[in-house]
Amino acid sequence: MSSSNPLRDPADRRLPRIAGPSGLVIFGVTGDLSRKKLMPAVYDLANRGLLPPGFSLVGFARRDWEHEDFAQVVHDAVKEHSRTPFREEVWQQLIQGMRFVQGTFDDDEAFERLRGTIEELDKAQGTGGNFAFYLSVPPKSFPVVIQQLKKHGLADQKGGSWRRAVIEKPFGHDLRSAEELNAIVHEVFAPDQVFRIDHYLGKETVQNILALRFANQMFEPIWNRSYVDHVQITMAEDIGIGGRAGYYDGIGAARDVIQNHLLQLLALTAMEEPASFDADALAAEKTKVLGAVRLPKDLGRDTVRAQYAAGWQGGAKVIGYLEEEGIDARSKTDTYAAIKLGIDNRRWAGVPFYLRTGKRLGRRVTEIAVVFQRAPHSPFDTTATEELGQNAIVIRVQPDEGVTVRFGSKVPGTSMEIRDVSMDFAYGESFTESSPEAYERLILDVLLGDANLFPRTEEVELSWKILDPIEEYWDTHGTPARYPAGTWGPVEADDMLERDGRSWRRP
Amino acid sequence: MSSSNPLRDPADRRLPRIAGPSGLVIFGVTGDLSRKKLMPAVYDLANRGLLPPGFSLVGFARRDWEHEDFAQVVHDAVKEHSRTPFREEVWQQLIQGMRFVQGTFDDDEAFERLRGTIEELDKAQGTGGNFAFYLSVPPKSFPVVIQQLKKHGLADQKGGSWRRAVIEKPFGHDLRSAEELNAIVHEVFAPDQVFRIDHYLGKETVQNILALRFANQMFEPIWNRSYVDHVQITMAEDIGIGGRAGYYDGIGAARDVIQNHLLQLLALTAMEEPASFDADALAAEKTKVLGAVRLPKDLGRDTVRAQYAAGWQGGAKVIGYLEEEGIDARSKTDTYAAIKLGIDNRRWAGVPFYLRTGKRLGRRVTEIAVVFQRAPHSPFDTTATEELGQNAIVIRVQPDEGVTVRFGSKVPGTSMEIRDVSMDFAYGESFTESSPEAYERLILDVLLGDANLFPRTEEVELSWKILDPIEEYWDTHGTPARYPAGTWGPVEADDMLERDGRSWRRP
Repeated sequence: MSSSNPLRDPADRRLPRIAGPSGLVIFGVTGDLSRKKLMPAVYDLANRGLLPPGFSLVGFARRDWEHEDFAQVVHDAVKEHSRTPFREEVWQQLIQGMRFVQGTFDDDEAFERLRGTIEELDKAQGTGGNFAFYLSVPPKSFPVVIQQLKKHGLADQKGGSWRRAVIEKPFGHDLRSAEELNAIVHEVFAPDQVFRIDHYLGKETVQNILALRFANQMFEPIWNRSYVDHVQITMAEDIGIGGRAGYYDGIGAARDVIQNHLLQLLALTAMEEPASFDADALAAEKTKVLGAVRLPKDLGRDTVRAQYAAGWQGGAKVIGYLEEEGIDARSKTDTYAAIKLGIDNRRWAGVPFYLRTGKRLGRRVTEIAVVFQRAPHSPFDTTATEELGQNAIVIRVQPDEGVTVRFGSKVPGTSMEIRDVSMDFAYGESFTESSPEAYERLILDVLLGDANLFPRTEEVELSWKILDPIEEYWDTHGTPARYPAGTWGPVEADDMLERDGRSWRRP
Repeated sequence: MSSSNPLRDPADRRLPRIAGPSGLVIFGVTGDLSRKKLMPAVYDLANRGLLPPGFSLVGFARRDWEHEDFAQVVHDAVKEHSRTPFREEVWQQLIQGMRFVQGTFDDDEAFERLRGTIEELDKAQGTGGNFAFYLSVPPKSFPVVIQQLKKHGLADQKGGSWRRAVIEKPFGHDLRSAEELNAIVHEVFAPDQVFRIDHYLGKETVQNILALRFANQMFEPIWNRSYVDHVQITMAEDIGIGGRAGYYDGIGAARDVIQNHLLQLLALTAMEEPASFDADALAAEKTKVLGAVRLPKDLGRDTVRAQYAAGWQGGAKVIGYLEEEGIDARSKTDTYAAIKLGIDNRRWAGVPFYLRTGKRLGRRVTEIAVVFQRAPHSPFDTTATEELGQNAIVIRVQPDEGVTVRFGSKVPGTSMEIRDVSMDFAYGESFTESSPEAYERLILDVLLGDANLFPRTEEVELSWKILDPIEEYWDTHGTPARYPAGTWGPVEADDMLERDGRSWRRP
């Protein structure tokens, strides 16, 4: 899909990618995501000169706001959460295209007003009919909003203009619900009009997986079963569920994180080289590798789910999951999940991929660790390498973005002793450029129609195909294990790796 | 060859390697090397508890010294140059075994006195007849000292005791002289009694080449012609010839550095994995790879030698080589040499090894850079990788000991641009252990009979076989190029790599 800006040479990816005439409509504009991420991202893009002069931002919500009230909310959100400094002239430009439409999702008149607003903006701001609809709404509201967009002709692309739908996770809660949701969406929007946000894919470090693997000569030759022992993909949070009880309970860690973020990281880590970095070519490789994922034979042995119990975090005592407000004391929802997957292809046969995620763990960290086999033979005395671990390449997704390589080096001294050392590459130290927020990148991509970083229907459905049997097994077998808040998860997860002669990294 | 210390379990290389009963005789004890390196190293070993209680140090020189005068010289040298703190109790112990023998190398009586001193030390200090003779003398004195040792029975190993000869470079100045020297040495000492010092091999970073390559899983798979584009081995000095005119002129950079240090570094970088780290197994592999070294067909095209001209260094104006005191203004001696070598084996066929060394270069640095090919195919837009160089693993031998890996990483931003970044491992930051001086390690190895880190006869002769045709070519073709002091060598050396589509690193 090409750029919408005729001035941009699509062949030169180093030129600033500037969106052409367009606008963004946010449903659910009063929510947290909108204030903390979307509004600041729009401002940051404008401040960086990546939005067209007439760019327009339309809020849609139930509140009884005037355009000015909406602008004030955006103003406050930008002041508080933007990455780049506030500049009055940028703001004054941006405010010209700001509109608010009051209404509920089932209110036909409101959607007519929205249509009128868009037409007005096309004239006043030159948005050219190009609008993206960002559905920052609860999953249950997806169908009605989509249907309303269709009913009021808002999804129609007339005379070369474009209309796009941006959908936030969750993309369903299992394969069936995902298929239903996809059916509803695709009844209204063509596949290339739909952008599913997995904000992890907007992170620099995640995009760097592809640069690391395919722009270099030295990693790809060892990136396979001949040299890799196993892969660990971890997303650990230190926080509990906070105020999200209503959303979280019944969903759990595996659906909330593994189905989308971790399986996408697995796909990028394990996939074959794409023919190009076009969205189609990328999606083809991700789909291929997700389709090759194999579940463990014994789900009781090679998956673990657990709930955090009371414990200590950051020097403070915290309550357990079952004591959290709004959580049923009999809840079986997982706040921690660890699963072992295989990949049935020539590159990865026999190499386990261990995925884990949890709340209330030791610290907040996301990383991909490619752990190598020991050298097949060591010409050194065994005592010389007693303290030598396995080589590893660790892609640190957050918070200390970068890459770490762990390898063995001689300990200084008059004898030969070899011990693990690390070398680091840190984004913060290596580049003067600061990293855009994931939402900046992704909103710009939506406006440009670049679909590279958005999971497709097939990827979403394949991910549920992987997770569904595990969730079904958990529903029908036993109860979640327990781990004290502030630790690195349940003993059962340690046992799971120990049975394989391995252990989790303590990142 | 096993340890001389019966208490030491030779299988455990992590236990301190402690020398058994023994002594060291230094010929040329009044020289710079002795005062700055050998005496301090002996003290440091004693201070670390790696020498036996009765360890003895005998100085042999022309000076009219008493034992006390010699002890005072050692004392001052130790105070000034030792790596570890001065401890009176260590010194008092060490001084018990200190003796001085006055004499010239052709003085039979002096060598008889030396024999008497050794016998006295065997009784008084329990050295058990185990003595190493360190020839810290000009090359022309090698033969006479060796002959004297034979004549006075000092090379004889009686009743299980050992005698060893330690020889400093230069090991000849061409193949013929090296063969002659080796013939003289081996008429008196068996091969396993001879220890040739190449102090570079005592450096931690050099020993780490083997640990890096063979204790790890991730480097060896890419350490070959399929992935490596070329290798650059650099030893740059910022100093001129100083007071060494008499030794240096007529020898030059190639004989002084390439023949020994750089070809040894090449051997360690390029050799196959040895069956074990026994001296024999190591020497076998080094010999094999040195034997496979192929000279360039066109020596005029693929070698460069040059002399430094006047220039600037460290903010001061410095004179050119031909203006140095004691240098003939018509001298053709090289102070800079660069050569391109091939290795005729399956691993390295077609991969050039560029070796260079020089005085009065930009800064003092020794490094081995393994430079990889570009990725065979880049799925990225060409503009995205325009500023991307080649991957490299750089072993930093000195002065900032460590390893650097250079690779491409995505530049933060909303477009895909890939640029070179580095990750570093630094000895100083990774280990609390401080590195022993090369001479500490090597003297201890001599006393233990560990010959791993000492080049053998065959290696020395093979190295001359590589260098001789180049020196002959230079003798008969043209004159040295010139480079201003403080620069990175002559334009001709840059041209040499440019013709191959490559360029020297600026380390």
